[in-house]
Amino acid sequence: MKVIKDSVHDHIAVEGIARELLDTPTVQRLRGIAQLGTVSLVYPSANHTRFEHSLGVYHLACEALEQLGIDGRQATRVEAAALLHDVGHGPFSHNVEGIVHRETGRYHDDVGDLLASGEVAAILENHGLDPAAVAGLVAGKGRFGQLVSGELDVDRMDYLVRDAHHTGVPYGTIDHGRLVRELTFVDGELVLGEGNVQTAESLLVARALMNPTVYNHSAARIAKAMLRCAVEGLIDSGAVEAERVARMDDHDLIVSLRRTDETETFARRLDHRELYKRAVWAEIDDVPGGIIEADHDSIREFEGEIAGEAGVSPDEVIVDVPDRPSMTESTSRVVVNGEIRRLGRQSALVDALRAAQYSQWRLGVYSPPEVRERVGHAAVRTLGLEIDGPLVSETRDGLYATLDQFAE
Amino acid sequence: MKVIKDSVHDHIAVEGIARELLDTPTVQRLRGIAQLGTVSLVYPSANHTRFEHSLGVYHLACEALEQLGIDGRQATRVEAAALLHDVGHGPFSHNVEGIVHRETGRYHDDVGDLLASGEVAAILENHGLDPAAVAGLVAGKGRFGQLVSGELDVDRMDYLVRDAHHTGVPYGTIDHGRLVRELTFVDGELVLGEGNVQTAESLLVARALMNPTVYNHSAARIAKAMLRCAVEGLIDSGAVEAERVARMDDHDLIVSLRRTDETETFARRLDHRELYKRAVWAEIDDVPGGIIEADHDSIREFEGEIAGEAGVSPDEVIVDVPDRPSMTESTSRVVVNGEIRRLGRQSALVDALRAAQYSQWRLGVYSPPEVRERVGHAAVRTLGLEIDGPLVSETRDGLYATLDQFAE
Amino acid sequence: MKVIKDSVHDHIAVEGIARELLDTPTVQRLRGIAQLGTVSLVYPSANHTRFEHSLGVYHLACEALEQLGIDGRQATRVEAAALLHDVGHGPFSHNVEGIVHRETGRYHDDVGDLLASGEVAAILENHGLDPAAVAGLVAGKGRFGQLVSGELDVDRMDYLVRDAHHTGVPYGTIDHGRLVRELTFVDGELVLGEGNVQTAESLLVARALMNPTVYNHSAARIAKAMLRCAVEGLIDSGAVEAERVARMDDHDLIVSLRRTDETETFARRLDHRELYKRAVWAEIDDVPGGIIEADHDSIREFEGEIAGEAGVSPDEVIVDVPDRPSMTESTSRVVVNGEIRRLGRQSALVDALRAAQYSQWRLGVYSPPEVRERVGHAAVRTLGLEIDGPLVSETRDGLYATLDQFAE
Amino acid sequence: MKVIKDSVHDHIAVEGIARELLDTPTVQRLRGIAQLGTVSLVYPSANHTRFEHSLGVYHLACEALEQLGIDGRQATRVEAAALLHDVGHGPFSHNVEGIVHRETGRYHDDVGDLLASGEVAAILENHGLDPAAVAGLVAGKGRFGQLVSGELDVDRMDYLVRDAHHTGVPYGTIDHGRLVRELTFVDGELVLGEGNVQTAESLLVARALMNPTVYNHSAARIAKAMLRCAVEGLIDSGAVEAERVARMDDHDLIVSLRRTDETETFARRLDHRELYKRAVWAEIDDVPGGIIEADHDSIREFEGEIAGEAGVSPDEVIVDVPDRPSMTESTSRVVVNGEIRRLGRQSALVDALRAAQYSQWRLGVYSPPEVRERVGHAAVRTLGLEIDGPLVSETRDGLYATLDQFAE
Repeated sequence: MKVIKDSVHDHIAVEGIARELLDTPTVQRLRGIAQLGTVSLVYPSANHTRFEHSLGVYHLACEALEQLGIDGRQATRVEAAALLHDVGHGPFSHNVEGIVHRETGRYHDDVGDLLASGEVAAILENHGLDPAAVAGLVAGKGRFGQLVSGELDVDRMDYLVRDAHHTGVPYGTIDHGRLVRELTFVDGELVLGEGNVQTAESLLVARALMNPTVYNHSAARIAKAMLRCAVEGLIDSGAVEAERVARMDDHDLIVSLRRTDETETFARRLDHRELYKRAVWAEIDDVPGGIIEADHDSIREFEGEIAGEAGVSPDEVIVDVPDRPSMTESTSRVVVNGEIRRLGRQSALVDALRAAQYSQWRLGVYSPPEVRERVGHAAVRTLGLEIDGPLVSETRDGLYATLDQFAE
Repeated sequence: MKVIKDSVHDHIAVEGIARELLDTPTVQRLRGIAQLGTVSLVYPSANHTRFEHSLGVYHLACEALEQLGIDGRQATRVEAAALLHDVGHGPFSHNVEGIVHRETGRYHDDVGDLLASGEVAAILENHGLDPAAVAGLVAGKGRFGQLVSGELDVDRMDYLVRDAHHTGVPYGTIDHGRLVRELTFVDGELVLGEGNVQTAESLLVARALMNPTVYNHSAARIAKAMLRCAVEGLIDSGAVEAERVARMDDHDLIVSLRRTDETETFARRLDHRELYKRAVWAEIDDVPGGIIEADHDSIREFEGEIAGEAGVSPDEVIVDVPDRPSMTESTSRVVVNGEIRRLGRQSALVDALRAAQYSQWRLGVYSPPEVRERVGHAAVRTLGLEIDGPLVSETRDGLYATLDQFAE
Repeated sequence: MKVIKDSVHDHIAVEGIARELLDTPTVQRLRGIAQLGTVSLVYPSANHTRFEHSLGVYHLACEALEQLGIDGRQATRVEAAALLHDVGHGPFSHNVEGIVHRETGRYHDDVGDLLASGEVAAILENHGLDPAAVAGLVAGKGRFGQLVSGELDVDRMDYLVRDAHHTGVPYGTIDHGRLVRELTFVDGELVLGEGNVQTAESLLVARALMNPTVYNHSAARIAKAMLRCAVEGLIDSGAVEAERVARMDDHDLIVSLRRTDETETFARRLDHRELYKRAVWAEIDDVPGGIIEADHDSIREFEGEIAGEAGVSPDEVIVDVPDRPSMTESTSRVVVNGEIRRLGRQSALVDALRAAQYSQWRLGVYSPPEVRERVGHAAVRTLGLEIDGPLVSETRDGLYATLDQFAE
Repeated sequence: MKVIKDSVHDHIAVEGIARELLDTPTVQRLRGIAQLGTVSLVYPSANHTRFEHSLGVYHLACEALEQLGIDGRQATRVEAAALLHDVGHGPFSHNVEGIVHRETGRYHDDVGDLLASGEVAAILENHGLDPAAVAGLVAGKGRFGQLVSGELDVDRMDYLVRDAHHTGVPYGTIDHGRLVRELTFVDGELVLGEGNVQTAESLLVARALMNPTVYNHSAARIAKAMLRCAVEGLIDSGAVEAERVARMDDHDLIVSLRRTDETETFARRLDHRELYKRAVWAEIDDVPGGIIEADHDSIREFEGEIAGEAGVSPDEVIVDVPDRPSMTESTSRVVVNGEIRRLGRQSALVDALRAAQYSQWRLGVYSPPEVRERVGHAAVRTLGLEIDGPLVSETRDGLYATLDQFAE
């Protein structure tokens, strides 16, 4: 047994298969991937990695398995999946996931290939586990997949607490001890036992508070959009292939961007925190549906058009269109009066938070500060936005306005 | 200057008038009053007192005054009011406030008399302050009264954090540093500056999570109701007058209850945590309006009737009817697009939390466990409750069900 | 199983015998006894009770038992002893222990009588346990007594962390998780396994830092001495017998002092924090050996003499002579190179901390501030102290001077 | 004013010159430098950077300046120096400082050149500051240099708390609030005021506990030694010049090591945490004085000799000789009885901790596990070590044995 000191869970005992998997290059690589990508440009203390998060998820999985009375091979399989659940992440975690998916067809939880070869496969097989079954758990499949990747998974329980701890934001605090204790299987579904509507809601509230404050902070979104453009430039330049980008860690990607002519301007800007500024910041009701649904190629065309009209270089216009709001946790299930119900049916809070999320949604157009005005007006015309008043209103009327002035 | 170590704010520097007031019997008495009354029967670590809370409120008031650029006599007045804001509390804080009010006509924030005599009055006058003006601030009057007692007061900011810290519940965490920094006066109204809708909501959410988990935990409510009955018995017995009860601390009240024949049964039960149990637990829609609005004498009559019908002693029936739900924080004001708005108008969350509070409301009838069944049925008939199914449903369908099983 | 929320250990699961013992009057009484007695006059947040501490000790005992692989009746016995270890405490914990011992011959860990009768005895016997054996563990007897009361006991591990948490002092932090994990039995002795010299030292250092800052803070010592005099007065007045004092809780004692003519002056002073001041504060080398070894009666005679010479009432002179310094933790045992060694033999730090403790030792003579000077000079003459310079030097040259100015 | 959220100090207000300096490439570069270098291989949560530390030091400097009553240009100079104090660090902080010094003659606090050019120089000059004077403060020169770099500097106060927070180790907790409040100048010397011997000692104790647990953890030392060899290899290979290495950040260095033939083996080993193991671990008394004092070239020769004798490649032998123990904090000054004294003269603890440090000192020889035995014996012969028993004793008899098994 190995005991590792963790700043969130204190001591984490790593045993059995986890002990072996921990030392593989596949897992060690996660040391080089920041959990929150560009968020550290806003919250300077948020430098934690996917590696420590994976240890935390493994730790909570062990507690949940004990609580659920599961052991033997089934437990080993879940432990392995918990520790391995993030090995499919590319550099900067979710920040470049979209590009990687577009180019390779894989999301971060498609880990079938990664688990089927090399040291990891050998270890899994030594323990009598089928790599494909473990990959299935990581993708949320089956009864136990819900524990690793579902609405009530231990992944979520670790990252909310860990991200709050490292950013210093007091909003992500959930009672993970209680959540883990109350997990139970009813008819093959992972649910929270009787009397836990509030427990389920606390997950939802934590996310609702962390989203605008941390995960979607406007400056982090701008940096992320710039990083995305840079990575596209890197691949387009032919310097690095998409498949290789997907397997890089942050160090590799940062240095590749610095050392490639086509991307070194973006790299320098990110290094020195010379971020683009918002040229437009539009609410969902002001954006034509066609724009919200537009695919990546159309967006790139819009960017080119806007750049043309504004008389700036295409690299100086970024159109950032988030997905339509969704709320995974609303489908988590709780036992109420002996019956399993979806939280969204049970809780008035779910609708309120959904409305909040809707009202917080923003399309952003970003550019260097000196051309911001020109780009803004060109974007409004090109995208057909209907904005009254200033193009970027710092005074947001949505719920949970991002806390710009309180972060670097 | 005196520097006091506090478990919440670390170091609290006590200066000027506060230094003098601190050593008065009026303020020192607060050492003997538990902040959360009977809640420590549920959360054993929650033994903090009104004294440390008052220091915390004084500390946040000083920070707010500095932030608002207020000094001189005005500041001194607010500092005094902050430190003195709770001196009107009777033993067990809010637990016996109702009785005291009924008997003396005073709520805990009627501190005019207390400040107008003795050492406190002398100190205030030495500093050129009118005791009545300080009492006015404590009652929330005037421009600066909002800072001491209002929707955005420093009282609330301290107690949410402190109560969370001492109970160990992870839900009361607010960013009081940010709240204090963002306070500003616009047209004489205390508001949160532009971009702080979320900051205001975080106060609301913290309360919404603390309410059922801590403040209205069902076991704490039962203990509180028993304490109330005991105190009524004490006054009725002629052993102690209501005015004297109001000026007792917890030690005095506990021992008086123990040493008075009419109340020693209740005292023993509270000491040994032999609490009554719920005989009925009814949702607001199942309770006739007349019952909800009934005054204290009517309730006592109902108790007598139920006892009669159930064939138990009147002391063995307690009917506990909370006030209709309300939500002070919903009227806090925030600047949005340069205009002051009430949070309730601005935030969809307010309505959701109001609905939650409404669905959490419960009328309780309590009795010793051995007569619970009989009392329950008698209560349903007497009060005209419309309850389908069990009289006490442990599986509550409201939001934020109280977390019974997770507390002693 | 009952799960209780604790501000130090988060969730404490109470099962089996502990669940039953918890609800006995004997254990519930500990809710009314402050863990640190008069220390809350210095650290206003330090209002925690023996009850929450006992839960914490029980919790760590369970962890240690699991780690040591002990179960069955032996484990049940230790669990019971852990939860019951403090039921012998009188009001204000150690503050009045001396008097109680003088009058009744019992220290707080003589719990034989308490466990041999009433509900506790019945529960123990139901579980097949001999009350005397459990009392033996509480007194530190036998192999498992070391776990409950010894140099490496779980009592110490809980109180250091808990006292630090509640006072707000950052010095008591030990790694109790590690300490518990490293406990092992070698040849029937409880020791820390190989590689844990530092772990053992960390306990020692924590105590060495907490002692002057918290446990022996000069103002807390004065208040404790005043309380002691008051209790002696109470017993001497005939109002309450020593046996009854021993079974009181804090509320009872406080109110008895308030309501007895002979003690109400002390009670008022303690209530209002009108503490005596130091008239003399003498280092160990300046105090004749006879004084240090003097018994209680001699001390009372000295007090009378000093009062006579100073022309004040005997109640206005308190002579406070601490025991000679000792250091329990120095005898804790650690495995070093396969051999069990006492920490004191192994660690240079032990000698240094012992020297520190020696240099921090102070005899105090206390009196009301207005007669302080007179009492001081009379005390120097009467006790034969050899003090150069001022009788009370605020500028202490010892290690770990008490942090007066940093606490109320 | 910009307010930045920090996980240690909560809100840090950045104003005036600091606000401008923050956005320079010179300061932003610190985002890419891990505060503790290879320690994150042992404590996975320890990924904090020199950037957040620099913000913390700036924050404490502002508090100290306010406490000391210093403002105007003098204060501005200190604020600038606090924020800039670490800009001279190379990648991996202290880990490669030795090489950089050998090759360039500069230590990390020689920042004269860095401040005298570019944006930083322009900002300093705009504020009427001489870059050389600011660099002087960083090097600890003059009255105010003590505040930035001295025995009682704010650098130390931040890093002890921050390193403890991020590693999760409970030992580095100091009361920085109190330390900053008690700083004062007496006769031009920065000292702690009367009554603070313990306060000064707490700094010493914190370091004494953090040293073996974190800073000198044996696995971190091995990784650091491997990194050092790798960097020497990088420079020797001609791939990168020493001057450029000194200005790299961690990303650059890691990737350069990966992409250079001569160093990619070391890079892979560090990436995959395939660390060398201890072949020898010798106490100071077993090492000839000549070895302890040997310069870098001699050490390299020894390594070659050992490799030759053991029949392994020179890269497979690392001889790691720490400097002789020293204890900066022992010279910190405290006012005792109105007189300034060095802590080392005043405190018995200093000698004990010095002895501890002496007994913890170890010379290490490291090699790949498979040749460990051969290398060990060759090293003993070549270096003339006098070791009885095993070459690597896991059971250390020193104080504060490193807590190997408790960290990854």
